[in-house]
Amino acid sequence: MAVTTISRSKCFGGTQGVYSHESAETHCTMRFGLFLPPAAATRRVPLLYWLSGLTCTEENFITKAGAQRVAAELGVAIAAPDTSPRGVDVPGDRDSYDFGVGAGYYVDATEPPWSRAYRMYSYITEELPRVLATSFPVDAANAGIFGHSMGGHGALVIALRNPGRYRSVSAFAPISSAARSPWGENALTKYLGSDRNAWRQYDATALIAERGWPGPPLLVDQGSDDSFLHEQLKPELLEEACTRAGVPLRLRMRDGYDHSYYFIATFVEDHLRFHAANVSA
Amino acid sequence: MAVTTISRSKCFGGTQGVYSHESAETHCTMRFGLFLPPAAATRRVPLLYWLSGLTCTEENFITKAGAQRVAAELGVAIAAPDTSPRGVDVPGDRDSYDFGVGAGYYVDATEPPWSRAYRMYSYITEELPRVLATSFPVDAANAGIFGHSMGGHGALVIALRNPGRYRSVSAFAPISSAARSPWGENALTKYLGSDRNAWRQYDATALIAERGWPGPPLLVDQGSDDSFLHEQLKPELLEEACTRAGVPLRLRMRDGYDHSYYFIATFVEDHLRFHAANVSA
Repeated sequence: MAVTTISRSKCFGGTQGVYSHESAETHCTMRFGLFLPPAAATRRVPLLYWLSGLTCTEENFITKAGAQRVAAELGVAIAAPDTSPRGVDVPGDRDSYDFGVGAGYYVDATEPPWSRAYRMYSYITEELPRVLATSFPVDAANAGIFGHSMGGHGALVIALRNPGRYRSVSAFAPISSAARSPWGENALTKYLGSDRNAWRQYDATALIAERGWPGPPLLVDQGSDDSFLHEQLKPELLEEACTRAGVPLRLRMRDGYDHSYYFIATFVEDHLRFHAANVSA
Repeated sequence: MAVTTISRSKCFGGTQGVYSHESAETHCTMRFGLFLPPAAATRRVPLLYWLSGLTCTEENFITKAGAQRVAAELGVAIAAPDTSPRGVDVPGDRDSYDFGVGAGYYVDATEPPWSRAYRMYSYITEELPRVLATSFPVDAANAGIFGHSMGGHGALVIALRNPGRYRSVSAFAPISSAARSPWGENALTKYLGSDRNAWRQYDATALIAERGWPGPPLLVDQGSDDSFLHEQLKPELLEEACTRAGVPLRLRMRDGYDHSYYFIATFVEDHLRFHAANVSA
């Protein structure tokens, strides 16, 4: 459970770090970013998990989203893990941007050769919280989760399956239904096999139908000029599932915004205040 | 003077673009970032120039500084040019991170082979303002300038030599005296030759002594944990020059901050409000 410091910089009075550790789940060295607000100097602070999208590492969110200013003010920590195992060298893991390295989809793969290391679901829900709670002044039981695109899918799936452990969930331009997205269909077939019943535990809309959600409304922002909107993201599927299940959803279409971090930076303050109101309650 | 759009994203209600054009000064295609605030939809807005540091391109500031939020609120545009010519392939231009590509030092080189394309001083002060005023709703006569490290040096030098054209200047961790910094000595020797008299027009402290500064105080933030502080940046030289010349300087040592964009992001709002108060006056 030893954590190595890769870098650490003062930022808005707190500390933005990048750390690594040996992961038993993914059988490799995993990196994560962690922002600790000034309040963490004197007490354990609530913890938000940010899950990134395809091709991202632990760096994208911490350098581009501009979240530290508001997290410092609100007194919440933000953990930003990597999006897949690194360096395990499974044949084919770098053939495309949307599968393998940088594209773990936050699942526990069951199909060889992926099943050994591609265990991002257990990594995010079990191992990383233990690492964080052991090494940093964070209150891992007082957590929210959010993410972008593939990471928005991950945040929704992880919260919906573990409602007792995440008090709030939000997403930017999430893959609403991995089973009904070309990206997701390709990845779930390879990670989980072709039996679509096995995919349901990693499909946000199926989970909403089966389990509901006892927490505050699901908060989702989606840009209207996002080039992946109609083919991959399909927020209408999320809306339909929530309506049927009676799960409150605050879905906000943002006119003219695209899929980039400029979109995330614009609205991240809203998401942080939403989570802080729930995790600190 | 034709400008090509590389990318354009909505951001805080405005537009963050990256554009390119053929430069007569640098004999190559130059890129720059430009943020236009929402106010630019209806009128020409004041313009701030951001000059980046060693190794940077037009991307670093626009993705990492988090300046768009405040610029949108204040109604100011921010132009973020590249730091050197690109693709002119002068032998030796990629041998080190602190000279050549990514390291133009905002000078007009006089020594061959650099003198043909390494004309970043004229590019920033003459050509880029014309390009911007021609193609975008900015008021190029109502400008401020700021930058980081090598770009802090560039901002100070350019403002001090052109007080009528820049109403305010600020810097993050600038090279205070290029002639008394190992980075600067190496670069100025190669770009300008070994006669140190020729360096004075590119040394902020020499310019302060010779010309003073009629504008508002020079605003400088410097992190105390900056690894380049004592060998390269030397804010005490700037302080000494300002004291002798009677030029007001607001030099703020920031305890525990380093040289990174996490430092810049923390204090960029202060700089933007300082410039906006002067350019809009």
